[in-house]
Amino acid sequence: MLLSLVVLIITSLSFQAAVVVSSVTPPLQYQHPLDPLTEQEITLVQTIVLKKYPIKRNKLHFHYVGLDDPDKSAILKWQQKYSPKHVAKIIIPRKSFVIAIINTQTHEIVIDLKAKLIVSDNVHKGNGFPTLTSGEQDEAFLLPLKYGPFKASIYKRGLNLSEVVCSDFSVGWYGGETKRKRYVRIECFMKEETANIYVRPINGIFIRVDLEEMKIVEYHDSETVPVPKAENTEYRASNQRPPFGPKQHSITCHQPQGPGFHIDNGHSVSWANWKFHIGFDMRAGAVISLASIYDLEKHKSRRVLYRGFVSELFVPYQDPSEDWYYKTFFDAGEFGFGQSTVSLIPNIDCPPNAQFIDAHFAQADGTPITLKNAICVFEQYGNIMFRHTETIIPNENIAESRSEVNLIVRSVVTVGNYDNILDWEFKASGSIKLGLALSGILEIKGVSIKHKSEIKEDQHGSLLSANTIGVYHDHFYIYHLDLDIDGEYNSFEKTNFKTVRVTDGSSKRKSYWTIETETAKTESDGKVKIGTAALELAVVNPNKQTSVGNVVGYRLIPAPPIHPLLAQDDYPQIRGAFTNNNVWVTPYNRTEKWAGGLYIDESRGEDTIEVWTKKNRDIKNKDIVLWPVLGVHHVPAQEDFPIMPLLSTGFELRPANFFERNPVLKTLSPKTVSWPECPK
Amino acid sequence: MLLSLVVLIITSLSFQAAVVVSSVTPPLQYQHPLDPLTEQEITLVQTIVLKKYPIKRNKLHFHYVGLDDPDKSAILKWQQKYSPKHVAKIIIPRKSFVIAIINTQTHEIVIDLKAKLIVSDNVHKGNGFPTLTSGEQDEAFLLPLKYGPFKASIYKRGLNLSEVVCSDFSVGWYGGETKRKRYVRIECFMKEETANIYVRPINGIFIRVDLEEMKIVEYHDSETVPVPKAENTEYRASNQRPPFGPKQHSITCHQPQGPGFHIDNGHSVSWANWKFHIGFDMRAGAVISLASIYDLEKHKSRRVLYRGFVSELFVPYQDPSEDWYYKTFFDAGEFGFGQSTVSLIPNIDCPPNAQFIDAHFAQADGTPITLKNAICVFEQYGNIMFRHTETIIPNENIAESRSEVNLIVRSVVTVGNYDNILDWEFKASGSIKLGLALSGILEIKGVSIKHKSEIKEDQHGSLLSANTIGVYHDHFYIYHLDLDIDGEYNSFEKTNFKTVRVTDGSSKRKSYWTIETETAKTESDGKVKIGTAALELAVVNPNKQTSVGNVVGYRLIPAPPIHPLLAQDDYPQIRGAFTNNNVWVTPYNRTEKWAGGLYIDESRGEDTIEVWTKKNRDIKNKDIVLWPVLGVHHVPAQEDFPIMPLLSTGFELRPANFFERNPVLKTLSPKTVSWPECPK
Repeated sequence: MLLSLVVLIITSLSFQAAVVVSSVTPPLQYQHPLDPLTEQEITLVQTIVLKKYPIKRNKLHFHYVGLDDPDKSAILKWQQKYSPKHVAKIIIPRKSFVIAIINTQTHEIVIDLKAKLIVSDNVHKGNGFPTLTSGEQDEAFLLPLKYGPFKASIYKRGLNLSEVVCSDFSVGWYGGETKRKRYVRIECFMKEETANIYVRPINGIFIRVDLEEMKIVEYHDSETVPVPKAENTEYRASNQRPPFGPKQHSITCHQPQGPGFHIDNGHSVSWANWKFHIGFDMRAGAVISLASIYDLEKHKSRRVLYRGFVSELFVPYQDPSEDWYYKTFFDAGEFGFGQSTVSLIPNIDCPPNAQFIDAHFAQADGTPITLKNAICVFEQYGNIMFRHTETIIPNENIAESRSEVNLIVRSVVTVGNYDNILDWEFKASGSIKLGLALSGILEIKGVSIKHKSEIKEDQHGSLLSANTIGVYHDHFYIYHLDLDIDGEYNSFEKTNFKTVRVTDGSSKRKSYWTIETETAKTESDGKVKIGTAALELAVVNPNKQTSVGNVVGYRLIPAPPIHPLLAQDDYPQIRGAFTNNNVWVTPYNRTEKWAGGLYIDESRGEDTIEVWTKKNRDIKNKDIVLWPVLGVHHVPAQEDFPIMPLLSTGFELRPANFFERNPVLKTLSPKTVSWPECPK
Repeated sequence: MLLSLVVLIITSLSFQAAVVVSSVTPPLQYQHPLDPLTEQEITLVQTIVLKKYPIKRNKLHFHYVGLDDPDKSAILKWQQKYSPKHVAKIIIPRKSFVIAIINTQTHEIVIDLKAKLIVSDNVHKGNGFPTLTSGEQDEAFLLPLKYGPFKASIYKRGLNLSEVVCSDFSVGWYGGETKRKRYVRIECFMKEETANIYVRPINGIFIRVDLEEMKIVEYHDSETVPVPKAENTEYRASNQRPPFGPKQHSITCHQPQGPGFHIDNGHSVSWANWKFHIGFDMRAGAVISLASIYDLEKHKSRRVLYRGFVSELFVPYQDPSEDWYYKTFFDAGEFGFGQSTVSLIPNIDCPPNAQFIDAHFAQADGTPITLKNAICVFEQYGNIMFRHTETIIPNENIAESRSEVNLIVRSVVTVGNYDNILDWEFKASGSIKLGLALSGILEIKGVSIKHKSEIKEDQHGSLLSANTIGVYHDHFYIYHLDLDIDGEYNSFEKTNFKTVRVTDGSSKRKSYWTIETETAKTESDGKVKIGTAALELAVVNPNKQTSVGNVVGYRLIPAPPIHPLLAQDDYPQIRGAFTNNNVWVTPYNRTEKWAGGLYIDESRGEDTIEVWTKKNRDIKNKDIVLWPVLGVHHVPAQEDFPIMPLLSTGFELRPANFFERNPVLKTLSPKTVSWPECPK
């Protein structure tokens, strides 16, 4: 590869300092500007911040260390120019955005990683706190075990302290105006005879921890219901007794031409007609960027998605009692979807033909940690791409079918008890299916009830086993999808279906339907509540037309719609206001990434998509972001216990007049190859 | 195997004649009572009917020849007793139900296949006609080509008659009370330079054929819009010019233990914990019966589904003009979902690990025809069954995941232009997912418009290419699912979610939600329109409880809901009234199989599920049938042209308190096996 002598400089709009440009430092050349921070970069961030704040370790914690989003226009120019074969290179300033709590103040620090200097350092003054660190949570877990009153409570219950494990829970916000401290509540469980701690809660103990002081600041013990039994709660195969079954047969597969995809430099994926970048962020988890699809007919790559990720996950439980009312979790913002991403198990979480991507992120002290197998990429076979059997042409036997290979990018985010399986499925036909599945363990409330006939009043959950209530709750997800359909200036179209009555005798029909397409002008037009009325939603590029004059676009085929059930004036609903619509559309704004707010721990709903969109900004022919909401109201069933088989939902982004015609018409089914016989 | 000397006799309730019992005739022993008619049996039916009616061939046509549904209680007793190892056998009377038009009268004939005699022979007097035969359609296609005025129309247009092919279309019903004849309308297309005839319609020619006379009885030619061009309409890979792409890589797979499923006697499937029967019917297509799942904990097989199939598919087009208004097709009832099932292409429509089932059905003259590879069965890998990574237990590293193998039963029904891909996906966790995907070719209206800017009035469709309108239409499917959840007496439960306001200061929350479950008493309670209100639907067995007292059940997780857009008093809507609800529940009734009516061709909506349910029968703790409705309003996009990439929808039947707990807890991931290296 020729090294660049011609270097273009793009100055980030949000960063006025001189840009350091280099075409000779080897690591940079191979780095995509959206690649997550490397271990070295995370260490550099740590060094720079600790140098500025040489204070006691426990007074400085890194809550977020990530890539400071490069200026979008710079990235787009870079993408346009970038080609491994071209000599012209554009260097994007490489910066890190850091959120650190230093002496109880929340700092937002931007660091230039090339210049190795702090560009800005501001203190967040508003409500809400950053994502909890894993480190402080691990510390908080252990506090009760050394706390006298807690030990007394355990002995009083006749339980074995050495079998107790605790976990922390974000406390939400339930009114009150005074400045609050960073609290968590701690609940403890019995691990005796089972790994399935969540189903064995020790009820009735109230523990509040002040995270800055790292001590228990409030403690009550009020309860006497027994801990549910361990019997039949173990989920590990290694701890099951025979007989096992039903049996699944093994399969082994081989791709004689190798995989159909290639991951360049660990993050840049090429597959079939798609190219995209897989990033990773401590808060967002897997991030798909710069997805573009090659148009065989136009002989060029066309942009579809600038960036997409899960912006927030709201999980409000539905038990108003003192032990439960506060459980209204924002899993992405409070616990970090990246920080909570777990290692995928090869051959099980992903099939044997998968390739894995590791992730790195900062621990509370700033030291990088590596998460092996954070994301997997694999091809899936077995579906049909399109087909037709034609029977009416005399003397011709036409049966045309093409089998489909899809590319799946998978990650699993486990926040405490629940496992979220997140799939991005790319199709050569241009569709992207976003699959979302839930597994893991239910949150359980211990009760004295052993049989449904004993239930006299609302238990706020389902009786799953003796003494075991699976509490009702919701899972509301919102995606941030910065679509750039064939360019960044896009519009959001709502197509309404209307019944037309024929009254003039012009037809033997009395009615038919037709459509009326409306372009959303402002953010309030972009708010969609899906009801009984038929509706098609699309993001289009009003500046580009197909040869017959349709605007190019992508449809959103939404998941089955979900609507919030909490009262609008209830605190968690104010914070989780993103659930008020099934779809939102906003103009692209660099800072609007988190639909519940950047600082959502103990937030008061002041930085939500509901608040942003009150400005009612123009969204017509603008760079817009689509925010689909999906999820489930979860009434647990006994089958979800002690561990829950996947419950799946999802939605599709499907090209609609984006291509001139079916873009996979010239895609052949993969050649059938036989299992090779060994020579005798 | 021991031959039975002890034989129990079950007398069908609907058949009072003596039952012939045999334990020694070999073919019967191996035959499942729900197996479709064999070729020999179809020939026997033909012989028996022709013997009774020794009349001219063209005056006797077989419109339906199928298995006369055995009495359900007899089947259930048979199933209970049946075991290859047991000596006690129950012989179910084997009968055929035949619909034949004999001298223009529609006969319903029941034949005892053992006794080789006609049990009953009744003439249908009401409105509506049986499913069209393939034979009469093939004949009707050819009529225009020999019809002078048509030939003149073709010459007038400057078209080449030898390149014209025609197809027939059911005419529906648009008012009028007099007894009607069996008509079809014929439309013709150009096959010149393309196999994709549907996109090259010859517009403006009205041809009505009387099927009994088999002649053109009405003809007009009123139109002059050109036939859309053949350019870019070909969908066969063999007729595409290079470059091909995007490229898909091959895969070859091997199951060292063999497949995980077994098909006994061609129809009875055992896989993992499931057993079920795959039948085939000229009208319904693939039929799944007697699905039961082995409960490892209760050490027994438990019933889930007595029988399930697609009952009807309604495809109303939305153009009120003379050429189009009548296109309101009932694809299952008018054309036969079985008769329209097409041969699956091995390695493409189904993966290489699939096994195939052939089907046999009667042609118009009664002769059996074999459809090779009508249904395929295969295992699909690559998903997760359940998982959890546990991070809070000190010094323990817990990551438990089980990979999932699913069993898919697939068939494709191609009615004219559209291909319906129908999947039944069985999961060891107890779920059945019913997948429905659309592919094939759009129905096209030729217009003189070449660019959207020329459109001045509603064209009732999307401009897909020059001169080419893809007309708006719907696809409404309704399934007949005779669930027998752990026995045949079941109830239908609707769980409503309600917001509870906290006003007494008992909680820091202002609200929460809870559920109220309502058991449907009658058919009107069983009609569900899915709107914005959260709702859970389940079929339960109120007579069976889990050990903690939940009634055992299966949830219906519906597809995104679709609602009809035609006026309620419009003729096609009266006939397609099954679309008025998203779910219907009826008491089991042997004759209520077809939601639009048994005789739906030219029907007047007198035998629809809307009419049946007006009786408002009891459905509480009865043998009930669940009828989910799903589908799409289809606004064609250019990507659907010239052939449409799959558009998928579907729903799930999911156990809910059916099992005591997760039923796959003891299911191990299949062992990882490596690609074998050949010895050097």
